[in-house]
Amino acid sequence: MNEADFIAALRALPLHPGARGLNDDAAVLEIGGETLVITHDAMIEGVHYLPDQDMADVAWKLVATNLSDLAAKGAAPIGVLLGHTLGDGDESFLHGLHEVLRHYGTGLLGGDTVGSGKGDGARRTLGLTAIGRASHTPVPSRSGAQIGDALFVTGTIGAAMLGFEALRDGTGADHAAYARPLARVAEGEALAPHVTAMMDVSDGLLLDAYRMAETSEVSIAIDTATCPVADPARRMECLGWGDDYELLFTLPAGAACPVKAVPIGTVEPRGFAPLFVDGEAVTNAQGLGYTHQ
Amino acid sequence: MNEADFIAALRALPLHPGARGLNDDAAVLEIGGETLVITHDAMIEGVHYLPDQDMADVAWKLVATNLSDLAAKGAAPIGVLLGHTLGDGDESFLHGLHEVLRHYGTGLLGGDTVGSGKGDGARRTLGLTAIGRASHTPVPSRSGAQIGDALFVTGTIGAAMLGFEALRDGTGADHAAYARPLARVAEGEALAPHVTAMMDVSDGLLLDAYRMAETSEVSIAIDTATCPVADPARRMECLGWGDDYELLFTLPAGAACPVKAVPIGTVEPRGFAPLFVDGEAVTNAQGLGYTHQ
Repeated sequence: MNEADFIAALRALPLHPGARGLNDDAAVLEIGGETLVITHDAMIEGVHYLPDQDMADVAWKLVATNLSDLAAKGAAPIGVLLGHTLGDGDESFLHGLHEVLRHYGTGLLGGDTVGSGKGDGARRTLGLTAIGRASHTPVPSRSGAQIGDALFVTGTIGAAMLGFEALRDGTGADHAAYARPLARVAEGEALAPHVTAMMDVSDGLLLDAYRMAETSEVSIAIDTATCPVADPARRMECLGWGDDYELLFTLPAGAACPVKAVPIGTVEPRGFAPLFVDGEAVTNAQGLGYTHQ
Repeated sequence: MNEADFIAALRALPLHPGARGLNDDAAVLEIGGETLVITHDAMIEGVHYLPDQDMADVAWKLVATNLSDLAAKGAAPIGVLLGHTLGDGDESFLHGLHEVLRHYGTGLLGGDTVGSGKGDGARRTLGLTAIGRASHTPVPSRSGAQIGDALFVTGTIGAAMLGFEALRDGTGADHAAYARPLARVAEGEALAPHVTAMMDVSDGLLLDAYRMAETSEVSIAIDTATCPVADPARRMECLGWGDDYELLFTLPAGAACPVKAVPIGTVEPRGFAPLFVDGEAVTNAQGLGYTHQ
């Protein structure tokens, strides 16, 4: 089974109503008059990070990517649970974990530490569960984009791609955007009362916009010339790469945007494709961005 | 770093108050008048389950072991988040997941599905976060054992050991206790208002009792002849093996026990060792049960 098959099968299991049909970045749990947002993301050695990467950066990214899912729901972090596999660089990992928890003013709630077992080729898997408190209800979802809305994105897309290449090739160029991404927590909280739909850009802007359109049952038209990219000479590559953790969201036409962000497209009635890129229909998500095999 | 070193270092990080100093089975989160209990446990192929084991059983155990942590806090499950690595037997895994969610009347909240990457020797890691609602506050901890209390355990200790051996050796004998352990959810809820301390027996009765004594700053004296073991001829082996997921708890002397359980020892003033087994002092946890290298 590939990722899509597996997730489709998961949707046939007993789901908690807060799972939002497994179509969103995070689960939403109403508890005692409060609304919690909960997410879990894993990173595998050699898949989500380079085997020789600084483990302090890996710890940072593990936390930041989960907090980015909370940010996309307008939630402020309460705490995290770590699923850690012991291995090389654990001291660095702890150092990075300390830095990222301090940076976001959040704390460790618990988790599990396991040995990876004997033998070569054992790839480490690192998991993190993040819990946050929603700042606004209803909690924004991916599925709320309305016809006539404007599509916005924060930050610069493709910066993580350039950072990855610098790290992989040892060029010495800045790789912080890849190694130490920032979760847009403050922006997510500021946006939550205003957006019709919101998600974080984790697998590539075009793929994530495609998913937003699919879930919202609309079409989204993107004008790539307006997209803020890290390298305009490689515009389409930037828009296909993931790992930027910017926020992608829709606002009603004419609404003022409360954070620094750029309009890059519009929401249209559902046409024969969920996504139109510079007027060209994209009918299949294949090849649009990062997907797991 | 080994597991103990790593966990000691984690304790120096910013901890959420609900982390209980990372000394407990689960974290406790007070949210708007409700109390949530949250836990995360991982299982690694070849470490926590046999590589050729039925993946339906692995899914069952992954959920049951986490719900056992909730049970030890007297919490009823709300939902789970799955951190899944794709691999062989995913159809069976989904089948087992369906069964265990239905058995405990709980649902999937979300999670993450990742590819394990190419290459042989990649061991799969499966993670699960379980969230429950505490049925009683204060939520029982490991650290509350009081001098004069009686120590009890539910069920039969060592049944998982016999099940593991049956499965490993292909004897055809019953291996359900190892493959499909049961979380004592109802017992945990019934006990929560009465116990002074409670935990689940995951790493072996003697080791877990040692930990309860350490955290409670008392000594615990166990009379092994009274311990309900699956094979009396291998009594000490049974008491050293883990995976039984029974509840170990303390009640004030003379208090009626509201569930089926057996008294196996007493809580005493802290002597020169945390644990006394048939009168013999145990000053070191090494070799008492299951620990990760």
